[in-house]
Order: sequence, then structure tokens, then C-alpha cells
Amino acid sequence: MYTHEVQKRVRYGETDQMGYLYYGNYAQYYEIGRVEMLRSLGLTYKSMEEELGILMPVLHMECRYVRPAYYDELITIRTTLRKLPDRFITFHVELFNEQGKLVNGGRVRLCFVEKATNRTIRTPEYLLEKLRSYY
Amino acid sequence: MYTHEVQKRVRYGETDQMGYLYYGNYAQYYEIGRVEMLRSLGLTYKSMEEELGILMPVLHMECRYVRPAYYDELITIRTTLRKLPDRFITFHVELFNEQGKLVNGGRVRLCFVEKATNRTIRTPEYLLEKLRSYY
Amino acid sequence: MYTHEVQKRVRYGETDQMGYLYYGNYAQYYEIGRVEMLRSLGLTYKSMEEELGILMPVLHMECRYVRPAYYDELITIRTTLRKLPDRFITFHVELFNEQGKLVNGGRVRLCFVEKATNRTIRTPEYLLEKLRSYY
Amino acid sequence: MYTHEVQKRVRYGETDQMGYLYYGNYAQYYEIGRVEMLRSLGLTYKSMEEELGILMPVLHMECRYVRPAYYDELITIRTTLRKLPDRFITFHVELFNEQGKLVNGGRVRLCFVEKATNRTIRTPEYLLEKLRSYY
Repeated sequence: MYTHEVQKRVRYGETDQMGYLYYGNYAQYYEIGRVEMLRSLGLTYKSMEEELGILMPVLHMECRYVRPAYYDELITIRTTLRKLPDRFITFHVELFNEQGKLVNGGRVRLCFVEKATNRTIRTPEYLLEKLRSYY
Repeated sequence: MYTHEVQKRVRYGETDQMGYLYYGNYAQYYEIGRVEMLRSLGLTYKSMEEELGILMPVLHMECRYVRPAYYDELITIRTTLRKLPDRFITFHVELFNEQGKLVNGGRVRLCFVEKATNRTIRTPEYLLEKLRSYY
Repeated sequence: MYTHEVQKRVRYGETDQMGYLYYGNYAQYYEIGRVEMLRSLGLTYKSMEEELGILMPVLHMECRYVRPAYYDELITIRTTLRKLPDRFITFHVELFNEQGKLVNGGRVRLCFVEKATNRTIRTPEYLLEKLRSYY
Repeated sequence: MYTHEVQKRVRYGETDQMGYLYYGNYAQYYEIGRVEMLRSLGLTYKSMEEELGILMPVLHMECRYVRPAYYDELITIRTTLRKLPDRFITFHVELFNEQGKLVNGGRVRLCFVEKATNRTIRTPEYLLEKLRSYY
């Protein structure tokens, strides 16, 4: 299993008039989580897209809102790949506030698309080889 | 069952460099869908919050990304309440493009919180009375 | 002179915890204003980009925040081209609330870039011919 | 003169289909710049708002778009207070890409509002005392 953590502060523009991090902004936290996880493995999504011609569109997302996140809180984004990706890759994400309380839990499933052919492919080997030793 | 439709155009700032409506922006389409549904029933979320002191935080969201939505497309947001709300209210949302193809399907569950006491309450009667005849 | 008006409602996700339309979200209102102005002239920015291969990057923006805009207000976006565009095109934007009070005034200057060559060009003739009779 | 730098990566959701950081998202970078500058002085905007009852609405913003910022670039946000604030506080912001090239320059003017009275006040003394030695 591979787990990665990164932190991000809740910005004013991300709050709503309830004083909460707006429910639609969590998807950006999930994006940060998975992109920084890939970077921790020595891969950048940017290079996958530009050099390897692979897009990763999102197929499904689920979000559970457990407690509010507030302005200026430093949120810890914990992203986990519970199993080796195959035709899909599913990132599990948990967000914790500064008291270590769970704020939000989510799950995002993406696939791999070859830009040149616009066809879905299996997980590229260069990603699998980074991950295998963890499973 | 109560169903309501409203349209919204995909804006440049909502696209990403894949040329798609960014996956995190669908939540705003869902918000528009449910707020305009309430307005069609003669209720505004604004007045619920300001006059009646009721907040409606989101508890859960699920999104299925069926096909991309592109810049400048006029998206039809169809929002449905499949059953009368009780402790929760669940909006089912479907987004269609100009060709009538399903772009995205989602589900958002919210609850009702009394601002004064910060406690969860059941669906307020003034909302139920607007809805009962449809069920 | 050519002036165009379009309306947009302030959404929950656009407010911040001060209860105001977040200052960074006005740029999206300006975008809606100029895109809908072009559409009113029989042009879409989408077709300019896709069929004619013209991009319009923003060079400069100025925003004056006169009074707050609040959640659920229906904002009137008035966009004006004070003079015929040449190397640049400058949109003047005024936003009014439901009481007709000025909320915000802005100015956005863009140029025209030919995608194929990545070079700046003068205002394309097909845009000028739509506009000339107004000046 | 007081200058502060902080970095932020361009996220996928912040790009548009031109492949650029969307012009409307720079305001969020400016927000990060000024909030982190205040933090570097030992002040948080959060505590100003919550404990001291001071709001800082934006009155004016100007943005010059010098060159595009691209996905995944680590942007350096340099924020400068050129003079001691009085009735207003003006932050000058410059954004640099990883090559050290200027991407964007901006200016944001805010005022101070006492929440209790909803009246504009001069720069609070606790902010001035942090700044005086730099001028």
C-alpha cells in the first residue's frame, strides 16, 4: 500500500458565507493529493501528459463531508492507493484538520487515455514499476 | 416525484487544459440545480438561511463523469427529488449536453441545521408542504 | 458605441465568509459579459478559437469594488466597447445589483493571437465588420 | 519597505483550455501573497477578523498579464508594501515562474472595516507597530 501526505491551507476565496470550505472545492484538494503522491514516486502528471501523451480523466468521485473545514486551517491531505491500479486507478483521500480530526473522506477513480489514439489503456508500465514494491 | 430543469453555459474559466469542464466544477452545477429547484417551488435558499435561520450543509456527494462537457456548451441540469426528504434531503442530478447526451450524473445529500442552536433538525414543514402533492 | 447586458446570479460557491461575492470571482463575470456581447453580434468566442484559430489572451484587468454583491442577487453585467478595437480590444464592464446600484466597475484589455503562428495580430476583419456601424 | 515571498504551484483546476493559468485565478495568488506576508509579521488575517473584529474588503485591483503561467509551474509570489498603510493598504504583487521570469504584476488596495460598527477605520495600531521599523 502506498500512502502520501501533503498540506494545504484553506484560503479565503475557498470559503463560502457559511464560513466553511465550500463543498465543491474539495475536489481541488483531492487533485493536489494525487498529483503530489505521483511526484513523491518520481513522476509528474505534467510529464505524463506532455512527454508520454497520457491523459487521466476522472470517471467517478465520492465525497463524505464529516465536519467543516474553516478559513486558514492547515489541512493534511492523506492519499492512499489501496491496490495496484489496472484499468483504473483509485485514490482514497482523507483530509484532517490541525487537531487531527477527520474533515472529509473521498475517493476518485480515473482511467488512462492515450492522447494520440484517444483510447483507454491499462496502467502504463512506468507507473506500475514505481508502485510494485509497495504491494 | 419532483423534477426541475435549468440551463447553464460552460465558461472558459471552468475548463481545464484538457479542454474539459474541470471535474471539480460540477459541484457548482449541482448547486445551481438544487437552488433553482427550490426557487421553482417558491422557496429561496437565501430566505431559508436569512429569515428562517436554517443552514443546509452537504453531507455526501457522488459524481459519475460519463462524457466530457466542453467550453460554451449549454448544459441542461435536471434535478430530481425521488422521495420526500426526512432527516436528509437527496438531490439526484443529471447533466445533458446540447445533443441531449448524458454528460454527468450526481447525487448530493444535505441535512438541515438550525442556526440558533447549531442542531440538526428534520425537514422543515414549509418545505414539506410545497412537496407533498408530488409524492 | 456598442453596449450589451446579460444577467447572472451570485452563487453560494462564489461567496466568501464575509458573505460577499469573493473579489477574485468578478473576472468570471467580466468573461461572461464579453462572451455574451460577442454572441449578440453573431460571433462566438468558441468558433473564433476553433474555426478561425484566434486566441484572445488577457493583457490587463482593472477592477473597482464599489459595494458588495451578495448571495443570490441577480447581477446585471453591462459590457461596453467604447471604441473600435485595433491591436487591442478593451471591454468596459459595470455590474449592477437588483436595486440598480453599481456594484463593481472593470476594464479588461485583450489582444488577438493567431494560434498557427503564435503571433499577435490586429483585430480580425470579421469582428470589425460586425462593429463598424456602431461607431 | 517590507517584501515577502511565498510559492504556490499552478494546479490543473486553475488552468483553462488555452493551457494557461486562467486570468481570473491570479486574485487568489495575490490573496495568498498578502495573507502570508501578514503571517510573516506575526499577524494572521483570521485573528484580525475573529479576535479584533476587523474586516479588510478589497477596493481596487489591477493585474498585468506579462506571460502565461502553465500547469504545475511553481510560482513565486513576491508581495511588497511600498509605504506604510494609512486609510488604505496597498499590496504590490509580482509573480515569477521557475525561470525567474515575470509572469504577472498586480496591485490590490484594501481598507479596514470595524465589524461592530461597519465603519471604515485607519490602519490598526497593532499592524503599524509591526511595520514601522521597515520604513
